[in-house]
This record gives sequence, structure tokens and C-alpha cells, in this order.
Amino acid sequence: MSDLENSLATIIEVFHKYSEKEGDKHKLKKSELKDLINNEFPSFIEQVKDQATMDSLMESLDTDGDSECDFQEFMTFITMVTVCCHEFFEHHEDE
Amino acid sequence: MSDLENSLATIIEVFHKYSEKEGDKHKLKKSELKDLINNEFPSFIEQVKDQATMDSLMESLDTDGDSECDFQEFMTFITMVTVCCHEFFEHHEDE
Repeated sequence: MSDLENSLATIIEVFHKYSEKEGDKHKLKKSELKDLINNEFPSFIEQVKDQATMDSLMESLDTDGDSECDFQEFMTFITMVTVCCHEFFEHHEDE
Repeated sequence: MSDLENSLATIIEVFHKYSEKEGDKHKLKKSELKDLINNEFPSFIEQVKDQATMDSLMESLDTDGDSECDFQEFMTFITMVTVCCHEFFEHHEDE
């Protein structure tokens, strides 16, 4: 597999590492998403401590309204983070 | 950086490796997207040889209608591929 293919496989693996912990093994509940963010984004995202931030994030991601985050909804989150990083690097590069 | 963060950085790097080749350095033209798919997805995607496939893919990704693929539009493609892989692995796992 190429580096890019390995990267996509890593995204899938990390999702499952957290989704399979409790309840529906194919979906992230709020506490699983919180642990994923706090453990797997040490450099890109500040530690999430307050409940309101997690409530608001889950609400924005949970398009099918089942109060959990499935893989498709998780990819929306990954896209948000990657587009933000891309914009940061682009502006940084222009300076 | 964590494995997940490195994966997102790889996606950004691969996009730029191809987008900066010709024309607008922050967007993939059709030939750059084709080269990216054919070189960076050796295991996940069959080689794209015909023009019609590329025309149709670019049309579906190019939501702002400028005939090129910007980073946000590229992330839609990455999401499509990753969701397909995820579904493949999930069904494989259930067998």
C-alpha cells in the first residue's frame, strides 16, 4: 500500500479502536469521540474538557440524529480538521 | 504527532505534490488528479485509463464549477474512497 492508502487505513483503524469500546461497535458515542480527540490529536486539537463543547460537536456531526457518530459522520469531522490544517499550512507558507 | 495526525498531514502533502505541478498550485487539474489516482492508489483503485471516467469524476467533485479540484473538493474524494474501504472491511469482518 502507498503512504496515502496507509493513511486512509489508519483513519479506519483509529475509528474502530474507539467505536468498539462500548455499545454499538460501529459507532462512536460521545465519550468515545471525546477520548479519540483527546488521545489521537495531541498536536492539532486542544484537549476537550467541558461537556458543552462535546455536546455541540456531536450535534453538528450527528446528521442522522441517533446521538452517535457513524463512520460517514466521522469522516466529516476528519475533513473539517484536515481542511483547517491545510488552511493553516497554506497561510503559513504565504508569510 | 500521532499516527492519525501524520495521516492527515500525508493527505495534505500528496494533494500538494500533484496540485503544484501545473497551473494553479492550490488546485488539481484533471490530469493532475488522474496522475494522483493512478500513482497513489495502487491497491485501492483500479488504474483510470479512459477520459470519460475522469470527466465524470471531476464533474462530481467540482462543486464550485471551476473545472479544477480544490482541497475541500479533494477531501470529498478522500471521504468517498475511505467510506468504501471501511464498508469493504466491515462486510469482510462480518463474514
